[in-house]
Amino acid sequence: MVQAVILGSGNVAHHLARAFTSHPGLQLVQRYARNINALDDVTIPVPITHDLSKLVVADVYILAVSDDAIAGLSAQLPFEGRLVVHTSGSMPLEALDLKNRGGVFYPLQTFSKAKAVDFSQIPICVEAATEPDYALLETAARALSEQTYRIDSAQRRTLHVAAVFASNFSNHMYKLAADLCANNHMPFDILKPLIQETAHKILSLPPRDAQTGPAIRHDQKTIAAHLELLQEPSQRAIYQLLTQSIQHG
Amino acid sequence: MVQAVILGSGNVAHHLARAFTSHPGLQLVQRYARNINALDDVTIPVPITHDLSKLVVADVYILAVSDDAIAGLSAQLPFEGRLVVHTSGSMPLEALDLKNRGGVFYPLQTFSKAKAVDFSQIPICVEAATEPDYALLETAARALSEQTYRIDSAQRRTLHVAAVFASNFSNHMYKLAADLCANNHMPFDILKPLIQETAHKILSLPPRDAQTGPAIRHDQKTIAAHLELLQEPSQRAIYQLLTQSIQHG
Repeated sequence: MVQAVILGSGNVAHHLARAFTSHPGLQLVQRYARNINALDDVTIPVPITHDLSKLVVADVYILAVSDDAIAGLSAQLPFEGRLVVHTSGSMPLEALDLKNRGGVFYPLQTFSKAKAVDFSQIPICVEAATEPDYALLETAARALSEQTYRIDSAQRRTLHVAAVFASNFSNHMYKLAADLCANNHMPFDILKPLIQETAHKILSLPPRDAQTGPAIRHDQKTIAAHLELLQEPSQRAIYQLLTQSIQHG
Repeated sequence: MVQAVILGSGNVAHHLARAFTSHPGLQLVQRYARNINALDDVTIPVPITHDLSKLVVADVYILAVSDDAIAGLSAQLPFEGRLVVHTSGSMPLEALDLKNRGGVFYPLQTFSKAKAVDFSQIPICVEAATEPDYALLETAARALSEQTYRIDSAQRRTLHVAAVFASNFSNHMYKLAADLCANNHMPFDILKPLIQETAHKILSLPPRDAQTGPAIRHDQKTIAAHLELLQEPSQRAIYQLLTQSIQHG
C-alpha cells in the first residue's frame, strides 16, 4: 500500500486525488491546498489542510502545482529526508529542494477538470534519485496505469517538446483548417472524420509511413495552387515551411 | 435506384465500387479500368471492361482517377449528354469535358486499399451543374453516408487546402514528435494517448478553445527552454513560426 499526500488544487491534483482514492494499492491520506476554497471537489473523502505544519506522515508527497511553485513549496515543507515528487513535464528533478528525497511522477495527458479521466490509459513517466524510491513510485504508477515509463530529466525535457508538437501544434493545424472552413462558409464538421482517421492511423503505422498529400507526392502543381489560394501571410509561411519539412524529412 | 459505372482502379474506385454494391438504392452496373489486371478486388460481382466503347448506359459515370487523368478520360468517353462526375478534392467541375453533364462526388477521407471503410462516417461533398443532376448525386451520397454537403468548386479548392492542414500537416507534427522520441531513446508509444485525446477533443470543443501549452499561455521561459533544446534548424523554425501563429491567432 502506497500512502500519499497530494499538494495542489489544479487539474492534475484533482485527477490524481480521485485516482489515488479509487485504485487498490494506493491510499490518499491527506490533501493540501494553500487556499482550501480552490478545492471544488470536496466530495473526495480525505482530510484537507491549508497548513504545511499539519502535514501527516506518508510514503510520498506529490506536489501537483505549477512549475513556478515547485521550488518554493518544496523548500517550505517542514520535514526532511522524505520522498517528495513533482508532476511537471518540463522541470528537472533538481527543481525540488534537496532536503527531501526527490522524484518525478509525470502523467502525460491534457487534463481539464470537468472531464473524467481514465488513468489506466495515461502514460506515467517516473524518475527518482535512488532505486528504492524509483521502485515505490513505479509501484504507484503501475497501480494507476497500464503504461509506465522510466524517463530521466533530460529525456523528459525533450518529451515535453515532443508533446508540444504532437498536441499543441497538431491542434493548431486543426484551428487553421477551421479558419479556412469558416472563411469560406463551410462547417468544420466536414473535416472531423478526416482528423480522427489521421490520429487513428498512427496507432498502427509510423507517422512517416502514414503521410499522404501533395507535399510527400512532390505534387508541385497542387502546392502552387494551394499557395495561390492562401492570402494570409502567416498561413502561407506555415504551408511552405511544413511542405519543405515533409519533403526533406 | 441510382445506377453507376465506376471508372478507375485506385483506392477511391475500389472503395466506391464496394460501397455501390452493398447499399440499398445504389447499383453498380459496370466497372472500367484501362488495365483490368490493376483491379485486384475482382470479388466485386460486376462486369468489368477495359474498352471505353463497351460502356453501358447508366445514371452516372464516376471517374475515380488521378487528377491528371480526369480531363483526358472525360474527353475520350464515346457518348454525350450523360452525367459524368469526378471524385477529386482539388479539381474544379470544369476539368471535365463539356460534352457531358458535369458533377463532383468527393468523399473527404484518406483511403488505403487494405483497410475497410465505413462510408456512413465519410463526408461526401457534392456539386453539379444543374439542379436535377445535383438531386441525383445527393440521393446517391445520402444512400452511402450520413454526412453529405453541397460544396461548389471554389469552396472545394479551399476545403482541400484545409484538409492538408488538418491531416497532412498534423500527421507531420506526429512525425516530428516521433523523431524527437527516437533521438532520445523513448518509444513514440508514450505520446499516442495524448495524440488521440487531442484529436478527440475537437469533436466537442472548437480547436481555438481546445488549445493548451506554452504558446497560448505566453510562457516565454518554457518556450525559450524548448528552443534551446531544438538544435535542428528546421525543427526550430517550425516551433517558432507555430508558436507565433498560436499567439497571434
